[in-house]
Amino acid sequence: MKPKFIELSEAIIENIKSGELLPGDKIPSENELINTHKISNTTARKVLSQIESEGWARRIKGKGTFVLNRTPKHQLLRTLGSLDATRRGFHDYLTAEGFSHKDIILEKTILKEGISAEVNNKHFIIEGPILKIHLLRYADNELMKDEMKYISLKLCPKINHLSTEISYFKAYEETYQLKITDVKQTLSVEILPVHAPANNFGNESDIPVFVLDSVILCNNNQVIEIEKSLYRGDKYKFSIIATPVYNDQKNKKVK
Amino acid sequence: MKPKFIELSEAIIENIKSGELLPGDKIPSENELINTHKISNTTARKVLSQIESEGWARRIKGKGTFVLNRTPKHQLLRTLGSLDATRRGFHDYLTAEGFSHKDIILEKTILKEGISAEVNNKHFIIEGPILKIHLLRYADNELMKDEMKYISLKLCPKINHLSTEISYFKAYEETYQLKITDVKQTLSVEILPVHAPANNFGNESDIPVFVLDSVILCNNNQVIEIEKSLYRGDKYKFSIIATPVYNDQKNKKVK
Repeated sequence: MKPKFIELSEAIIENIKSGELLPGDKIPSENELINTHKISNTTARKVLSQIESEGWARRIKGKGTFVLNRTPKHQLLRTLGSLDATRRGFHDYLTAEGFSHKDIILEKTILKEGISAEVNNKHFIIEGPILKIHLLRYADNELMKDEMKYISLKLCPKINHLSTEISYFKAYEETYQLKITDVKQTLSVEILPVHAPANNFGNESDIPVFVLDSVILCNNNQVIEIEKSLYRGDKYKFSIIATPVYNDQKNKKVK
Repeated sequence: MKPKFIELSEAIIENIKSGELLPGDKIPSENELINTHKISNTTARKVLSQIESEGWARRIKGKGTFVLNRTPKHQLLRTLGSLDATRRGFHDYLTAEGFSHKDIILEKTILKEGISAEVNNKHFIIEGPILKIHLLRYADNELMKDEMKYISLKLCPKINHLSTEISYFKAYEETYQLKITDVKQTLSVEILPVHAPANNFGNESDIPVFVLDSVILCNNNQVIEIEKSLYRGDKYKFSIIATPVYNDQKNKKVK
Protein backbone atom coordinates (compact mmCIF):
# COMPACT_ATOMS: atom_id res chain seq x y z
CA MET A 1 0.00 0.00 0.00
CA LYS A 2 1.19 3.48 -0.87
CA PRO A 3 1.94 5.91 1.94
CA LYS A 4 -0.93 8.35 2.48
CA PHE A 5 1.12 11.39 1.41
CA ILE A 6 1.97 9.76 -1.94
CA GLU A 7 -1.65 8.84 -2.50
CA LEU A 8 -2.85 12.38 -1.86
CA SER A 9 -0.09 14.07 -3.82
CA GLU A 10 -0.86 11.82 -6.78
CA ALA A 11 -4.53 12.80 -6.61
CA ILE A 12 -3.62 16.49 -6.69
CA ILE A 13 -1.12 16.01 -9.50
CA GLU A 14 -3.86 14.18 -11.39
CA ASN A 15 -6.05 17.27 -11.02
CA ILE A 16 -3.26 19.40 -12.42
CA LYS A 17 -2.76 17.05 -15.37
CA SER A 18 -6.48 16.99 -16.13
CA GLY A 19 -6.77 20.75 -16.05
CA GLU A 20 -8.98 20.87 -12.96
CA LEU A 21 -6.20 22.94 -11.45
CA LEU A 22 -4.64 25.43 -13.84
CA PRO A 23 -1.29 27.21 -13.78
CA GLY A 24 -1.48 29.92 -11.16
CA ASP A 25 -4.23 28.17 -9.21
CA LYS A 26 -3.73 27.68 -5.52
CA ILE A 27 -3.64 24.11 -4.32
CA PRO A 28 -5.05 23.18 -0.91
CA SER A 29 -3.02 24.46 2.02
CA GLU A 30 -1.64 22.32 4.84
CA ASN A 31 -4.58 23.26 7.01
CA GLU A 32 -7.11 22.48 4.31
CA LEU A 33 -5.52 19.08 3.73
CA ILE A 34 -5.54 18.38 7.45
CA ASN A 35 -9.21 19.27 7.77
CA THR A 36 -10.43 17.60 4.62
CA HIS A 37 -8.49 14.36 4.90
CA LYS A 38 -8.02 14.03 8.65
CA ILE A 39 -4.26 13.70 8.34
CA SER A 40 -1.42 14.89 10.53
CA ASN A 41 0.41 18.10 9.76
CA THR A 42 3.56 16.10 9.01
CA THR A 43 1.66 14.18 6.32
CA ALA A 44 0.12 17.38 4.95
CA ARG A 45 3.54 19.00 4.73
CA LYS A 46 4.90 15.92 2.94
CA VAL A 47 2.03 16.06 0.40
CA LEU A 48 2.91 19.62 -0.58
CA SER A 49 6.66 18.94 -0.62
CA GLN A 50 6.11 15.95 -2.85
CA ILE A 51 4.11 17.97 -5.39
CA GLU A 52 6.67 20.74 -5.29
CA SER A 53 9.64 18.41 -5.65
CA GLU A 54 8.08 16.85 -8.73
CA GLY A 55 7.96 20.31 -10.26
CA TRP A 56 4.19 20.73 -10.46
CA ALA A 57 3.80 23.57 -8.03
CA ARG A 58 5.73 26.10 -6.05
CA ARG A 59 5.28 27.47 -2.57
CA ILE A 60 5.26 31.24 -2.26
CA LYS A 61 5.99 32.33 1.28
CA GLY A 62 2.95 33.65 3.07
CA LYS A 63 0.72 33.16 0.02
CA GLY A 64 0.30 29.46 -0.58
CA THR A 65 1.30 26.76 -3.06
CA PHE A 66 0.57 27.45 -6.74
CA VAL A 67 0.46 25.32 -9.86
CA LEU A 68 3.39 26.09 -12.16
CA ASN A 69 3.02 26.73 -15.85
CA ARG A 70 4.36 23.69 -17.66
CA THR A 71 2.44 24.11 -20.91
CA PRO A 72 4.39 23.87 -24.15
CA LYS A 73 5.88 27.29 -24.96
CA HIS A 74 4.62 28.49 -21.57
CA GLN A 75 1.37 29.58 -23.08
CA LEU A 76 -0.69 31.69 -20.73
CA LEU A 77 -4.38 31.19 -20.14
CA ARG A 78 -6.33 34.13 -18.78
CA THR A 79 -9.95 34.33 -17.79
CA LEU A 80 -12.26 37.03 -19.04
CA GLY A 81 -15.78 37.66 -17.89
CA SER A 82 -15.02 37.31 -14.18
CA LEU A 83 -14.48 40.23 -11.86
CA ASP A 84 -12.54 37.96 -9.59
CA ALA A 85 -10.01 37.23 -12.33
CA THR A 86 -9.77 40.93 -13.18
CA ARG A 87 -9.12 41.74 -9.56
CA ARG A 88 -6.02 39.59 -9.47
CA GLY A 89 -3.02 41.58 -10.64
CA PHE A 90 -0.83 40.79 -13.61
CA HIS A 91 2.12 40.09 -11.34
CA ASP A 92 0.30 37.81 -8.99
CA TYR A 93 -0.59 35.55 -11.89
CA LEU A 94 2.91 35.38 -13.30
CA THR A 95 4.56 34.84 -9.94
CA ALA A 96 2.11 32.10 -9.08
CA GLU A 97 2.80 30.37 -12.38
CA GLY A 98 6.52 30.44 -11.78
CA PHE A 99 7.59 33.22 -14.13
CA SER A 100 10.04 35.94 -13.33
CA HIS A 101 8.49 39.25 -14.19
CA LYS A 102 9.49 42.81 -14.68
CA ASP A 103 7.80 46.00 -15.84
CA ILE A 104 9.25 48.87 -17.75
CA ILE A 105 7.44 52.15 -17.37
CA LEU A 106 7.51 53.87 -20.74
CA GLU A 107 5.37 56.76 -19.64
CA LYS A 108 3.66 57.96 -16.50
CA THR A 109 2.09 61.37 -16.77
CA ILE A 110 -0.81 63.38 -15.54
CA LEU A 111 -3.11 64.64 -18.27
CA LYS A 112 -5.14 67.70 -17.51
CA GLU A 113 -7.63 67.06 -20.27
CA GLY A 114 -10.15 64.26 -20.36
CA ILE A 115 -10.00 61.41 -22.83
CA SER A 116 -12.57 59.20 -24.49
CA ALA A 117 -12.59 55.66 -25.81
CA GLU A 118 -14.90 53.33 -27.60
CA VAL A 119 -15.63 49.92 -26.12
CA ASN A 120 -18.34 47.63 -27.48
CA ASN A 121 -19.35 50.40 -29.93
CA LYS A 122 -20.06 52.75 -27.08
CA HIS A 123 -18.28 55.92 -26.06
CA PHE A 124 -16.84 56.42 -22.61
CA ILE A 125 -15.29 59.55 -21.22
CA ILE A 126 -13.01 60.25 -18.27
CA GLU A 127 -12.74 63.89 -17.33
CA GLY A 128 -9.34 65.27 -16.43
CA PRO A 129 -7.13 65.12 -14.53
CA ILE A 130 -6.09 61.62 -15.53
CA LEU A 131 -3.13 59.41 -14.75
CA LYS A 132 -1.75 57.91 -17.95
CA ILE A 133 0.47 54.86 -17.54
CA HIS A 134 2.20 53.06 -20.36
CA LEU A 135 3.80 49.84 -19.16
CA LEU A 136 5.69 47.07 -20.88
CA ARG A 137 5.14 43.85 -18.97
CA TYR A 138 7.64 41.05 -19.27
CA ALA A 139 7.59 37.40 -18.19
CA ASP A 140 10.91 35.58 -18.24
CA ASN A 141 12.38 38.54 -20.13
CA GLU A 142 9.86 38.33 -22.94
CA LEU A 143 7.38 41.14 -23.54
CA MET A 144 3.91 39.74 -22.97
CA LYS A 145 1.73 42.79 -22.69
CA ASP A 146 1.98 46.36 -23.88
CA GLU A 147 -0.41 48.12 -21.54
CA MET A 148 -1.87 51.60 -21.66
CA LYS A 149 -4.11 52.73 -18.82
CA TYR A 150 -5.95 55.96 -18.12
CA ILE A 151 -7.17 56.36 -14.56
CA SER A 152 -9.43 59.07 -13.18
CA LEU A 153 -7.53 61.13 -10.61
CA LYS A 154 -10.81 62.66 -9.58
CA LEU A 155 -12.06 59.28 -8.39
CA CYS A 156 -8.62 58.06 -7.30
CA PRO A 157 -6.68 61.04 -5.97
CA LYS A 158 -2.92 60.49 -5.74
CA ILE A 159 -3.09 57.03 -7.30
CA ASN A 160 0.11 58.11 -9.06
CA HIS A 161 1.80 57.69 -5.68
CA LEU A 162 1.09 53.95 -5.67
CA SER A 163 3.52 51.42 -7.15
CA THR A 164 2.68 50.15 -10.63
CA GLU A 165 3.29 46.63 -9.27
CA ILE A 166 -0.04 46.55 -7.47
CA SER A 167 -3.40 45.45 -8.78
CA TYR A 168 -5.07 48.76 -9.56
CA PHE A 169 -8.41 47.03 -9.49
CA LYS A 170 -7.88 46.14 -5.84
CA ALA A 171 -6.80 49.71 -5.12
CA TYR A 172 -10.03 51.05 -6.62
CA GLU A 173 -12.00 48.82 -4.31
CA GLU A 174 -9.91 48.91 -1.17
CA THR A 175 -7.96 52.16 -1.12
CA TYR A 176 -10.60 54.28 -2.81
CA GLN A 177 -13.65 52.35 -1.67
CA LEU A 178 -15.24 52.50 -5.10
CA LYS A 179 -18.00 50.07 -5.86
CA ILE A 180 -17.22 48.53 -9.26
CA THR A 181 -20.48 48.01 -11.09
CA ASP A 182 -19.32 46.90 -14.51
CA VAL A 183 -16.28 45.91 -16.51
CA LYS A 184 -16.73 46.11 -20.27
CA GLN A 185 -14.17 44.42 -22.47
CA THR A 186 -13.78 44.04 -26.22
CA LEU A 187 -11.26 41.69 -27.72
CA SER A 188 -10.08 42.14 -31.28
CA VAL A 189 -7.00 40.94 -33.15
CA GLU A 190 -4.39 42.43 -35.39
CA ILE A 191 -1.31 41.22 -37.13
CA LEU A 192 1.76 43.00 -35.81
CA PRO A 193 4.30 43.19 -38.59
CA VAL A 194 7.98 42.96 -37.75
CA HIS A 195 8.75 46.52 -38.72
CA ALA A 196 5.64 48.21 -37.39
CA PRO A 197 6.31 51.68 -36.01
CA ALA A 198 5.86 51.77 -32.24
CA ASN A 199 6.18 48.00 -32.08
CA ASN A 200 7.61 47.25 -28.67
CA PHE A 201 7.49 43.47 -28.98
CA GLY A 202 10.62 43.10 -31.10
CA ASN A 203 9.14 40.05 -32.81
CA GLU A 204 11.26 38.53 -35.57
CA SER A 205 8.32 37.43 -37.68
CA ASP A 206 4.77 38.72 -37.95
CA ILE A 207 2.75 37.81 -34.86
CA PRO A 208 -0.94 38.06 -34.06
CA VAL A 209 -1.80 40.30 -31.13
CA PHE A 210 -4.93 40.49 -29.05
CA VAL A 211 -6.17 44.02 -28.55
CA LEU A 212 -8.10 44.38 -25.33
CA ASP A 213 -10.16 47.50 -24.87
CA SER A 214 -11.79 47.83 -21.52
CA VAL A 215 -13.52 50.23 -19.20
CA ILE A 216 -14.15 49.90 -15.50
CA LEU A 217 -17.24 51.65 -14.19
CA CYS A 218 -18.46 52.46 -10.72
CA ASN A 219 -21.69 53.89 -9.36
CA ASN A 220 -23.53 56.40 -11.57
CA ASN A 221 -21.68 54.99 -14.58
CA GLN A 222 -18.59 57.00 -13.74
CA VAL A 223 -15.52 55.72 -15.57
CA ILE A 224 -12.62 54.84 -13.28
CA GLU A 225 -10.29 53.39 -15.88
CA ILE A 226 -9.91 53.01 -19.62
CA GLU A 227 -7.41 50.44 -20.85
CA LYS A 228 -6.04 49.58 -24.26
CA SER A 229 -3.55 46.75 -24.21
CA LEU A 230 -1.83 44.43 -26.62
CA TYR A 231 -1.16 40.82 -25.66
CA ARG A 232 1.15 38.55 -27.65
CA GLY A 233 -1.29 36.35 -29.52
CA ASP A 234 1.18 33.49 -29.78
CA LYS A 235 1.60 33.38 -26.00
CA TYR A 236 -1.93 34.01 -24.76
CA LYS A 237 -5.24 32.29 -24.74
CA PHE A 238 -8.38 33.63 -23.16
CA SER A 239 -11.00 31.53 -21.53
CA ILE A 240 -14.44 32.96 -21.13
CA ILE A 241 -16.83 32.16 -18.36
CA ALA A 242 -20.34 31.86 -19.74
CA THR A 243 -22.77 32.52 -17.00
CA PRO A 244 -26.52 32.45 -17.32
CA VAL A 245 -26.92 36.20 -17.74
CA TYR A 246 -30.14 36.88 -19.54
CA ASN A 247 -29.73 40.06 -21.52
CA ASP A 248 -33.22 40.99 -22.31
CA GLN A 249 -32.96 43.52 -25.11
CA LYS A 250 -36.68 44.07 -24.96
CA ASN A 251 -36.25 45.81 -21.66
CA LYS A 252 -33.94 48.44 -23.07
CA LYS A 253 -35.62 51.75 -22.62
CA VAL A 254 -35.64 54.78 -24.81
CA LYS A 255 -33.96 57.53 -22.85
CA MET B 1 -42.26 72.12 -31.97
CA LYS B 2 -41.27 68.82 -33.54
CA PRO B 3 -43.98 66.25 -34.14
CA LYS B 4 -44.02 63.54 -31.46
CA PHE B 5 -42.96 60.77 -33.86
CA ILE B 6 -39.85 62.72 -34.92
CA GLU B 7 -38.93 63.41 -31.32
CA LEU B 8 -39.21 59.74 -30.39
CA SER B 9 -37.45 58.43 -33.49
CA GLU B 10 -34.58 60.85 -32.86
CA ALA B 11 -34.27 59.59 -29.30
CA ILE B 12 -34.03 55.98 -30.51
CA ILE B 13 -31.56 56.89 -33.27
CA GLU B 14 -29.49 58.64 -30.60
CA ASN B 15 -29.40 55.36 -28.67
CA ILE B 16 -28.17 53.59 -31.77
CA LYS B 17 -25.48 56.20 -32.40
CA SER B 18 -24.28 56.05 -28.80
CA GLY B 19 -24.06 52.27 -28.82
CA GLU B 20 -26.84 51.73 -26.30
CA LEU B 21 -28.54 49.77 -29.04
CA LEU B 22 -26.16 47.61 -31.08
CA PRO B 23 -26.47 46.11 -34.54
CA GLY B 24 -28.86 43.17 -34.31
CA ASP B 25 -30.58 44.52 -31.21
CA LYS B 26 -34.33 44.74 -31.24
CA ILE B 27 -35.79 48.20 -30.90
CA PRO B 28 -39.07 48.76 -29.03
CA SER B 29 -42.12 47.38 -30.81
CA GLU B 30 -45.23 49.40 -31.66
CA ASN B 31 -46.98 48.08 -28.60
CA GLU B 32 -44.06 48.87 -26.34
CA LEU B 33 -43.91 52.42 -27.69
CA ILE B 34 -47.65 52.82 -27.18
CA ASN B 35 -47.46 51.62 -23.59
CA THR B 36 -44.30 53.45 -22.60
CA HIS B 37 -45.06 56.79 -24.20
CA LYS B 38 -48.87 56.85 -24.22
CA ILE B 39 -49.02 57.51 -27.95
CA SER B 40 -51.47 56.34 -30.61
CA ASN B 41 -50.67 53.36 -32.76
CA THR B 42 -50.44 55.65 -35.80
CA THR B 43 -47.69 57.63 -34.09
CA ALA B 44 -45.93 54.45 -32.97
CA ARG B 45 -46.00 53.11 -36.53
CA LYS B 46 -44.60 56.42 -37.82
CA VAL B 47 -41.74 56.28 -35.28
CA LEU B 48 -40.64 52.89 -36.56
CA SER B 49 -41.08 53.84 -40.23
CA GLN B 50 -39.01 56.97 -39.68
CA ILE B 51 -36.12 55.00 -38.15
CA GLU B 52 -36.33 52.44 -40.92
CA SER B 53 -36.48 55.02 -43.71
CA GLU B 54 -33.37 56.71 -42.37
CA GLY B 55 -31.59 53.38 -42.72
CA TRP B 56 -30.92 52.69 -39.05
CA ALA B 57 -33.06 49.63 -38.64
CA ARG B 58 -35.08 47.09 -40.54
CA ARG B 59 -38.36 45.42 -39.81
CA ILE B 60 -38.39 41.64 -40.09
CA LYS B 61 -41.91 40.33 -40.51
CA GLY B 62 -43.22 38.63 -37.41
CA LYS B 63 -39.98 39.19 -35.51
CA GLY B 64 -39.58 42.90 -34.84
CA THR B 65 -37.44 45.84 -35.89
CA PHE B 66 -33.68 45.41 -35.62
CA VAL B 67 -30.72 47.78 -35.67
CA LEU B 68 -28.73 47.44 -38.90
CA ASN B 69 -25.00 47.07 -39.00
CA ARG B 70 -23.59 50.38 -40.28
CA THR B 71 -20.11 50.08 -38.78
CA PRO B 72 -17.16 50.76 -41.08
CA LYS B 73 -16.29 47.56 -42.96
CA HIS B 74 -19.42 45.98 -41.43
CA GLN B 75 -17.44 44.76 -38.47
CA LEU B 76 -19.34 42.30 -36.33
CA LEU B 77 -19.50 42.44 -32.59
CA ARG B 78 -20.36 39.26 -30.77
CA THR B 79 -20.87 38.67 -27.09
CA LEU B 80 -19.11 35.91 -25.21
CA GLY B 81 -19.75 34.89 -21.66
CA SER B 82 -23.53 34.96 -21.91
CA LEU B 83 -25.66 31.88 -22.44
CA ASP B 84 -28.35 34.09 -23.89
CA ALA B 85 -26.04 35.28 -26.66
CA THR B 86 -24.92 31.69 -27.31
CA ARG B 87 -28.51 30.61 -27.60
CA ARG B 88 -29.16 32.98 -30.47
CA GLY B 89 -28.22 31.35 -33.73
CA PHE B 90 -25.62 32.59 -36.18
CA HIS B 91 -28.29 33.29 -38.78
CA ASP B 92 -30.58 35.22 -36.49
CA TYR B 93 -27.78 37.66 -35.75
CA LEU B 94 -26.85 38.23 -39.37
CA THR B 95 -30.42 38.60 -40.56
CA ALA B 96 -31.18 41.07 -37.80
CA GLU B 97 -28.13 43.13 -38.72
CA GLY B 98 -29.17 43.28 -42.35
CA PHE B 99 -26.76 40.82 -43.92
CA SER B 100 -27.65 38.23 -46.47
CA HIS B 101 -26.33 34.88 -45.35
CA LYS B 102 -25.68 31.46 -46.69
CA ASP B 103 -24.07 28.27 -45.46
CA ILE B 104 -22.13 25.71 -47.36
CA ILE B 105 -22.02 22.28 -45.83
CA LEU B 106 -18.56 20.91 -46.44
CA GLU B 107 -19.12 17.75 -44.46
CA LYS B 108 -21.93 16.14 -42.51
CA THR B 109 -21.18 12.65 -41.29
CA ILE B 110 -21.86 10.31 -38.46
CA LEU B 111 -18.78 9.13 -36.63
CA LYS B 112 -19.03 5.84 -34.79
CA GLU B 113 -16.05 6.56 -32.59
CA GLY B 114 -15.86 9.15 -29.86
CA ILE B 115 -13.67 12.21 -30.06
CA SER B 116 -11.89 14.36 -27.51
CA ALA B 117 -10.87 17.99 -27.35
CA GLU B 118 -8.98 20.30 -25.07
CA VAL B 119 -10.64 23.48 -23.88
CA ASN B 120 -9.15 25.67 -21.14
CA ASN B 121 -6.36 23.07 -20.70
CA LYS B 122 -8.90 20.40 -19.85
CA HIS B 123 -9.87 17.30 -21.77
CA PHE B 124 -13.43 16.61 -22.83
CA ILE B 125 -14.75 13.49 -24.47
CA ILE B 126 -17.89 12.71 -26.44
CA GLU B 127 -18.55 9.03 -26.92
CA GLY B 128 -19.76 7.83 -30.33
CA PRO B 129 -21.95 8.00 -32.26
CA ILE B 130 -21.35 11.66 -33.09
CA LEU B 131 -22.68 14.00 -35.73
CA LYS B 132 -19.81 15.90 -37.34
CA ILE B 133 -20.74 19.07 -39.21
CA HIS B 134 -18.31 21.25 -41.09
CA LEU B 135 -19.97 24.47 -42.24
CA LEU B 136 -18.74 27.51 -44.07
CA ARG B 137 -20.81 30.50 -43.01
CA TYR B 138 -21.06 33.51 -45.28
CA ALA B 139 -22.40 37.02 -44.76
CA ASP B 140 -22.92 39.09 -47.89
CA ASN B 141 -20.99 36.45 -49.83
CA GLU B 142 -17.93 36.71 -47.65
CA LEU B 143 -16.80 33.77 -45.53
CA MET B 144 -17.04 34.85 -41.90
CA LYS B 145 -16.80 31.61 -39.98
CA ASP B 146 -15.36 28.19 -40.69
CA GLU B 147 -17.23 26.04 -38.20
CA MET B 148 -16.65 22.49 -37.09
CA LYS B 149 -19.07 20.94 -34.63
CA TYR B 150 -19.28 17.52 -33.03
CA ILE B 151 -22.61 16.70 -31.43
CA SER B 152 -23.47 13.71 -29.29
CA LEU B 153 -26.09 11.57 -31.04
CA LYS B 154 -26.56 9.70 -27.82
CA LEU B 155 -27.87 12.85 -26.14
CA CYS B 156 -29.48 14.24 -29.31
CA PRO B 157 -30.79 11.31 -31.33
CA LYS B 158 -31.55 12.11 -34.98
CA ILE B 159 -30.24 15.67 -34.69
CA ASN B 160 -28.81 15.01 -38.14
CA HIS B 161 -32.41 15.26 -39.38
CA LEU B 162 -32.62 18.92 -38.34
CA SER B 163 -31.67 21.74 -40.69
CA THR B 164 -28.21 23.26 -40.16
CA GLU B 165 -29.93 26.67 -40.27
CA ILE B 166 -31.32 26.33 -36.77
CA SER B 167 -29.70 27.30 -33.50
CA TYR B 168 -28.44 23.94 -32.25
CA PHE B 169 -28.22 25.40 -28.79
CA LYS B 170 -31.96 25.99 -28.79
CA ALA B 171 -32.53 22.47 -30.09
CA TYR B 172 -30.53 21.01 -27.20
CA GLU B 173 -32.75 22.86 -24.77
CA GLU B 174 -36.10 22.64 -26.48
CA THR B 175 -36.14 19.56 -28.69
CA TYR B 176 -33.96 17.39 -26.47
CA GLN B 177 -34.88 18.99 -23.15
CA LEU B 178 -31.27 19.03 -22.01
CA LYS B 179 -30.35 21.29 -19.15
CA ILE B 180 -27.22 23.21 -20.17
CA THR B 181 -25.05 23.61 -17.12
CA ASP B 182 -21.90 25.12 -18.56
CA VAL B 183 -20.38 26.54 -21.73
CA LYS B 184 -16.60 26.65 -21.75
CA GLN B 185 -14.87 28.73 -24.38
CA THR B 186 -11.26 29.48 -25.19
CA LEU B 187 -10.27 32.15 -27.64
CA SER B 188 -6.87 32.13 -29.26
CA VAL B 189 -5.51 33.72 -32.41
CA GLU B 190 -3.49 32.65 -35.39
CA ILE B 191 -2.27 34.26 -38.55
CA LEU B 192 -3.81 32.63 -41.58
CA PRO B 193 -1.37 32.90 -44.45
CA VAL B 194 -2.70 33.34 -47.96
CA HIS B 195 -1.53 29.97 -49.17
CA ALA B 196 -2.30 27.91 -46.09
CA PRO B 197 -3.45 24.39 -46.89
CA ALA B 198 -7.11 23.93 -46.01
CA ASN B 199 -7.66 27.67 -45.96
CA ASN B 200 -11.27 28.20 -46.90
CA PHE B 201 -11.24 31.98 -46.49
CA GLY B 202 -9.59 32.77 -49.79
CA ASN B 203 -7.96 35.85 -48.26
CA GLU B 204 -5.65 37.79 -50.53
CA SER B 205 -3.27 38.85 -47.79
CA ASP B 206 -2.43 37.31 -44.42
CA ILE B 207 -5.31 37.77 -41.99
CA PRO B 208 -5.60 37.15 -38.26
CA VAL B 209 -8.21 34.59 -37.26
CA PHE B 210 -9.85 33.96 -33.93
CA VAL B 211 -9.90 30.30 -32.98
CA LEU B 212 -12.82 29.52 -30.71
CA ASP B 213 -12.76 26.20 -28.90
CA SER B 214 -15.85 25.44 -26.92
CA VAL B 215 -17.72 22.70 -25.15
CA ILE B 216 -21.33 22.65 -24.07
CA LEU B 217 -22.08 20.56 -21.02
CA CYS B 218 -25.30 19.33 -19.48
CA ASN B 219 -26.12 17.54 -16.24
CA ASN B 220 -23.51 15.09 -14.91
CA ASN B 221 -20.87 16.91 -16.97
CA GLN B 222 -21.93 15.09 -20.10
CA VAL B 223 -20.62 16.76 -23.25
CA ILE B 224 -23.32 17.66 -25.77
CA GLU B 225 -21.16 19.51 -28.24
CA ILE B 226 -17.54 20.26 -29.03
CA GLU B 227 -16.85 23.13 -31.42
CA LYS B 228 -13.72 24.40 -33.09
CA SER B 229 -14.31 27.41 -35.30
CA LEU B 230 -12.33 30.07 -37.07
CA TYR B 231 -13.65 33.63 -37.29
CA ARG B 232 -12.18 36.23 -39.61
CA GLY B 233 -10.19 38.40 -37.22
CA ASP B 234 -10.48 41.45 -39.44
CA LYS B 235 -14.28 41.25 -39.37
CA TYR B 236 -15.03 40.25 -35.80
CA LYS B 237 -14.74 41.70 -32.37
CA PHE B 238 -15.82 39.98 -29.22
CA SER B 239 -17.27 41.69 -26.23
CA ILE B 240 -17.11 39.96 -22.92
CA ILE B 241 -19.61 40.31 -20.15
CA ALA B 242 -17.85 40.44 -16.82
CA THR B 243 -20.22 39.34 -14.14
CA PRO B 244 -19.42 39.18 -10.46
CA VAL B 245 -18.66 35.46 -10.45
CA TYR B 246 -16.43 34.70 -7.53
CA ASN B 247 -14.27 31.78 -8.50
CA ASP B 248 -13.00 30.63 -5.22
CA GLN B 249 -10.05 28.43 -6.07
CA LYS B 250 -9.72 27.53 -2.44
CA ASN B 251 -12.92 25.59 -2.65
CA LYS B 252 -11.63 23.29 -5.34
CA LYS B 253 -11.63 19.83 -3.93
CA VAL B 254 -9.20 17.02 -4.39
CA LYS B 255 -11.12 14.28 -6.12
